[in-house]
Amino acid sequence: MMRWFTLLAASLLAGCVQMQSVRGTGDLGVVIERANGRVAVVETTGKTVLGRIEGLGDLSHASVVFSRDGRYAYVFGRDGGLTKVDLLTATIAKRVMQAGNSIGGAISQDGRLVVAQNYQPGGIKVFDAASLELLSEVPAAYGTEGKHSKVVGLADLTGNRFAYALFDAGQIWVTDLSDPRNPKTEKFAAGNQPYDGLVTPDGRHYLAGLFGEDGIALLDTWRPQDGARKILGGYGRGQEKLPVFKMPHLRGWAMAGGNAYLPAIGSHEVLVVDARNWQGVHRIPVKGQPVFVMARPDGRQVWVNFAFPDNGWVQVIDTVAGKVVQTLEPGKAILHMEFTPRGEAVWLSARDDNKVVVYDTATFKPLTTLPMQAPSGIFFTTRAARTGF
Amino acid sequence: MMRWFTLLAASLLAGCVQMQSVRGTGDLGVVIERANGRVAVVETTGKTVLGRIEGLGDLSHASVVFSRDGRYAYVFGRDGGLTKVDLLTATIAKRVMQAGNSIGGAISQDGRLVVAQNYQPGGIKVFDAASLELLSEVPAAYGTEGKHSKVVGLADLTGNRFAYALFDAGQIWVTDLSDPRNPKTEKFAAGNQPYDGLVTPDGRHYLAGLFGEDGIALLDTWRPQDGARKILGGYGRGQEKLPVFKMPHLRGWAMAGGNAYLPAIGSHEVLVVDARNWQGVHRIPVKGQPVFVMARPDGRQVWVNFAFPDNGWVQVIDTVAGKVVQTLEPGKAILHMEFTPRGEAVWLSARDDNKVVVYDTATFKPLTTLPMQAPSGIFFTTRAARTGF
Repeated sequence: MMRWFTLLAASLLAGCVQMQSVRGTGDLGVVIERANGRVAVVETTGKTVLGRIEGLGDLSHASVVFSRDGRYAYVFGRDGGLTKVDLLTATIAKRVMQAGNSIGGAISQDGRLVVAQNYQPGGIKVFDAASLELLSEVPAAYGTEGKHSKVVGLADLTGNRFAYALFDAGQIWVTDLSDPRNPKTEKFAAGNQPYDGLVTPDGRHYLAGLFGEDGIALLDTWRPQDGARKILGGYGRGQEKLPVFKMPHLRGWAMAGGNAYLPAIGSHEVLVVDARNWQGVHRIPVKGQPVFVMARPDGRQVWVNFAFPDNGWVQVIDTVAGKVVQTLEPGKAILHMEFTPRGEAVWLSARDDNKVVVYDTATFKPLTTLPMQAPSGIFFTTRAARTGF
Repeated sequence: MMRWFTLLAASLLAGCVQMQSVRGTGDLGVVIERANGRVAVVETTGKTVLGRIEGLGDLSHASVVFSRDGRYAYVFGRDGGLTKVDLLTATIAKRVMQAGNSIGGAISQDGRLVVAQNYQPGGIKVFDAASLELLSEVPAAYGTEGKHSKVVGLADLTGNRFAYALFDAGQIWVTDLSDPRNPKTEKFAAGNQPYDGLVTPDGRHYLAGLFGEDGIALLDTWRPQDGARKILGGYGRGQEKLPVFKMPHLRGWAMAGGNAYLPAIGSHEVLVVDARNWQGVHRIPVKGQPVFVMARPDGRQVWVNFAFPDNGWVQVIDTVAGKVVQTLEPGKAILHMEFTPRGEAVWLSARDDNKVVVYDTATFKPLTTLPMQAPSGIFFTTRAARTGF
């Protein structure tokens, strides 16, 4: 009898282990440890690592979106793996191999659908966010020979719609998933080789950067009947054909004071664009080829990291002064940055120093360093409540 | 021995009761049930009530802010009570009586400080967000006779600063709480009887509506050396001296497409203001005296409720069309509205129908109704990651 009670007590205690999991999720996030196929669960209040989750496959170029309650992270791996991670228990809730080669995904406005964008086979796939059941897919078929395009720049819009670009087809597609098993797709000619895309924070304008020509394709998703048009014809790509060491990530979208801040391709500049008329306003010289150009949530600062060989530097633009006001050297190979929800701090991954460094954005002083194995992307749950992430 | 194990097992089980509390907090919120001194904890994914917490005192004109992890709500009661509520366990974590008469509060950018704005005694008080220990206070003293002003329109800024207006003194104050036990306050002349205030979503511009004269006081908190200036001189208050049935709430701030949408005082209009130069653009006629004018998170729609006798109506402005596109009658005495984090739905409190109604913002169809006792304010945890709430 006593033995039975001991077992009971033990099993009750085992159940109670989860009690440390009673906590808010508003200050949680994940850091991709790309070399190990692992993610670290972190919290931004005490700035600590809460746990690690292994077995997520090839996490080079991984991206992450969050469930609307902030409890689950959906991790899209390069190898086509899609893993639903429970941040509160640091366990894998679900995992499927959904494609051969993938570069990211998005989650619908209502949080019910997770969508992956795939290189191979080219197209998007739609999953139930709870079960990861495949609901439908939209192959990126174009031309007359049944070819499929790589899909890039997938972004969620209001109304459970998604916008994305077809690199090989030179098109922007908008798929309405109000009825998730019956996708409805509108197609727009965009230009030569759209290589990435983003949506403005209000979810209205979808922009696709063009690699094969000079300019950016712009679609007003509130007035899709107008079609996509070309903006920023003198954007830089066509002038000198500079060598490009790393493609910029447009998802590092920055809006501040009515202007958009975009990485130039190849040249050492950040482009400032008036978001009312999409005309270039000016160019800010920076230390290298920009990769991510990200605004602090209040828009007062824009932080920029760079392609090799300048990827040990980070620069900060003051958007009122219109110029670089700070140059930092946080570590080797700064791959990504993420602001805390209200922007008092920024987390930076230094891949080749195996660390994440946290900076105070007011003083530019480092606050803490967290050891990580080859960290790349950093993603906080705040993204769950924002459009276009 | 067996008895001992039974007790052990029972106490372990009791501890485990909290396990139902393992859940994300990104989709949580509270509804004030003002007549009962009670708040309901709700979640916006399944649209249900998770629990109720009693004993919060006088909750007429109550307001709420959230801890940065989304777990705790700080409820400011009219009677000066400040209650820290644990949303995951539906219990009171802490409660203090901090003043005689209060109308709300705010939380610092780093989440460490909770600040209350008080009518009586007039001033602000600063509390440790974890313990609710009083750290400091700033009495709203003005003039030479030691008078104290009512404080209104308290809003958090970046850098752990707070802006607020002194109704009786006609001033805007900005207090820096970087060192919370040693507040540093700057004072600006604002105009006659500022009755409420708000900060733009980027945390830059603080606006105080003036009741005693025609116009709004504007302070650029990134350039405080310029002082406060008057905008919108023809704002409406001075023209006809219309009877005012209920003061509009400026906290129902709406920004969309670079324009701000503000409730007119007394007249049946929403004012549209260009946020780049703070000039009036146009006025949109609405059904009654607007109280809250709130933008859907994407800015495509602005929802408006009204003072008595039109408080059974709600109207929706399409910001691209620039006019009212929908008129709804959700229930009796619509006191407040709150959008889900990404705006697919809006929750409305119908005080005199004892219900909260949830509408789909795309179709304008009611999705569900939740019985509540005399509901007023609705607050979702998404506010934790936003400035000026």
